[in-house]
Amino acid sequence: MKHIFVLRVGHRKRRDPRVSTHVALAARAFGAEEMFFSGDKDPELVEKISKAVTNWGGEFKVQYVRSWKAFLNTWKSRGKSVHLTMYGVSACDTIEEIRLIDRDLLIIVGGQKVPRELYDLADWNVSVTNQPHSEVSALAVFLHMLNEGKEFEYKFKGAKIIVLPSARGKKVMESVL
Amino acid sequence: MKHIFVLRVGHRKRRDPRVSTHVALAARAFGAEEMFFSGDKDPELVEKISKAVTNWGGEFKVQYVRSWKAFLNTWKSRGKSVHLTMYGVSACDTIEEIRLIDRDLLIIVGGQKVPRELYDLADWNVSVTNQPHSEVSALAVFLHMLNEGKEFEYKFKGAKIIVLPSARGKKVMESVL
Repeated sequence: MKHIFVLRVGHRKRRDPRVSTHVALAARAFGAEEMFFSGDKDPELVEKISKAVTNWGGEFKVQYVRSWKAFLNTWKSRGKSVHLTMYGVSACDTIEEIRLIDRDLLIIVGGQKVPRELYDLADWNVSVTNQPHSEVSALAVFLHMLNEGKEFEYKFKGAKIIVLPSARGKKVMESVL
Repeated sequence: MKHIFVLRVGHRKRRDPRVSTHVALAARAFGAEEMFFSGDKDPELVEKISKAVTNWGGEFKVQYVRSWKAFLNTWKSRGKSVHLTMYGVSACDTIEEIRLIDRDLLIIVGGQKVPRELYDLADWNVSVTNQPHSEVSALAVFLHMLNEGKEFEYKFKGAKIIVLPSARGKKVMESVL
């Protein structure tokens, strides 16, 4: 596997602003390079994540794509794709195979109404349990499994704020440059 | 560890309905018995989760508590508590110790503005990375680590709908009783 990207399908600006923000932040924290989203255009979402990256470091980006389907079709020349869905085959049974691919990986998360075509276009349909929970938790647990917990070691370059892990309260190191 | 419970502090009905729903569903899917929440009363949240439980099985419950602080003080006679916060000590360094306790465990998640007292009252302040992401992903990854991935094996009694894991599309078994 080279690099990991996330595609959030069917973002709805009114209903999903916080959930899509959480998806993007989880994507970044658990090792993705970039999040693409389809559905409603949402400059506020892009702006919010850009601010988080300025403060917390790294080069994570968020980008709107007009058509998830066109994007996914183009993606096929670049790498593989995993659609996370509670209806898919267990992550436990597929993760090793997915970890072995030597191309970029696109992880696709949707909301409740995912178009049927997506199930056909993705290389894998994978479940993080077959119970309903959240695209945020599905993505994070899948990336945690895929990267074998390496998110705990990531350093984000150029961070203005660095947390100093603490048993009580909040300790941060802030760059004032 | 006996049983796992979740306390969601500072729920805001207008701003958080979907995030708190996702926290509750993740709590259920990853092995908690019950979620308590403080902040705004929200019968719709309770109702929504109750419907999910009717469909998907098990006995997970959601309950409002007027004061998280009073609740947490009372909890001390019943078990231990872990506050999930990006400012805490790494889950990697604490999870084994937490797994060994032989009492009920309360996992506390908050939003952005968590009262300082909570950091003092919780038995542990634990981080799932020191990066910002989401209470949904923090809770799910922490429970995944704590239960060593056992969420993939859980069966939920009395489910009306059971997913049949599938490489393409949605296959479910529905009880019509």
